[in-house]
Amino acid sequence: MDADKPLKGRFITLEGTEGVGKSSHLEALAEHVRAQGHEVVTTREPGGTEMAEAIRGLLLSPELPAMHEHTELLLMFAARAEHLQRLILPALARGAWVLSDRFTDATYAYQGGGRGIDAQRIASLENWVQGDLRPDRIVVLDAPVQIGLARAGKRGAADRFEQETVDFFERVRTCYLARAAQDPYRYRVVDASQDLETVRAAVIAAVADSL
Amino acid sequence: MDADKPLKGRFITLEGTEGVGKSSHLEALAEHVRAQGHEVVTTREPGGTEMAEAIRGLLLSPELPAMHEHTELLLMFAARAEHLQRLILPALARGAWVLSDRFTDATYAYQGGGRGIDAQRIASLENWVQGDLRPDRIVVLDAPVQIGLARAGKRGAADRFEQETVDFFERVRTCYLARAAQDPYRYRVVDASQDLETVRAAVIAAVADSL
Repeated sequence: MDADKPLKGRFITLEGTEGVGKSSHLEALAEHVRAQGHEVVTTREPGGTEMAEAIRGLLLSPELPAMHEHTELLLMFAARAEHLQRLILPALARGAWVLSDRFTDATYAYQGGGRGIDAQRIASLENWVQGDLRPDRIVVLDAPVQIGLARAGKRGAADRFEQETVDFFERVRTCYLARAAQDPYRYRVVDASQDLETVRAAVIAAVADSL
Repeated sequence: MDADKPLKGRFITLEGTEGVGKSSHLEALAEHVRAQGHEVVTTREPGGTEMAEAIRGLLLSPELPAMHEHTELLLMFAARAEHLQRLILPALARGAWVLSDRFTDATYAYQGGGRGIDAQRIASLENWVQGDLRPDRIVVLDAPVQIGLARAGKRGAADRFEQETVDFFERVRTCYLARAAQDPYRYRVVDASQDLETVRAAVIAAVADSL
């Protein structure tokens, strides 16, 4: 991608801890944006392309031995580099909206807040991989950790992250809220403990001024 | 690993393009160092641990779609972080010699020289993953590219790197020689086109002053 070429699309990410409903709200948001006449690409992290999904397989597999936190972080950014160069940047360049279930805020929240990796170390990889690119809007779906975990628990076998403790997810949630508080224009926090229809409307309202 | 703890062992790497005989000379060197009474750990990159070998699988698979050069570089350093933290540093800390078939010089040579990634971008990941750690001695097995490729070709199906062009390997070789020329103490270049016994003796001589 030519870094100097203006990106005509919008890059929106949905973030939050397990079970807050990111994927279903992402679909509803996509439908809404499409109805406004925009091309929409929905995707997720880690993953989004064949190679990035293969890296996701390594990251989430409960079968492989526990990896060092540096390895996990570098794998996250390896998957992100692929996702960005192969899918996100080309879509934004042609004017599409890209809606992603998680992006780099999840790395700050899970690997930083959750695992305790220094935010500066994350920032240096963020700059290495993304240059200046940041999402235009980050919607944080926020709910008490126990509510989300109870919902996520109904989805079957837990992956490596879902096996973490409640305390881990509390730190993840705190980190999301702290990041949102520092940049209220770019971030919007939606109370995801409300009923589905209310949350859906709030998510759409949270991106309305990008339309 | 505690970064302040002195590393009592020696870290020796063998480098070079395809087919120069790194793995057999590594074994001969290991035998020699063991005979001097040292514990020796032989390993390779990318790989060296179960998780790092799984990453190696992604890097070398000719089945997956071609990945972006940033993805490749981050995967290399993800595998390296795991290898370093789980195998190399613990071994060096207890006083073992670690002999590795490739390390970060291969990244400069293949991803830098070969693929044209800026050396500064590689250096920033090197510092991120390794801190101050560098091999105590780097033995570059050097031979004309055509000789090595003819040898490597006899080993069966080519992986993603072995499918590269002669011109690619010429750039890899040039990069190895340029790095060696800048630091003649740490690097030793051995002419690998000589007969096996002569090369073996030269490799052992190249690490003798570390013993």
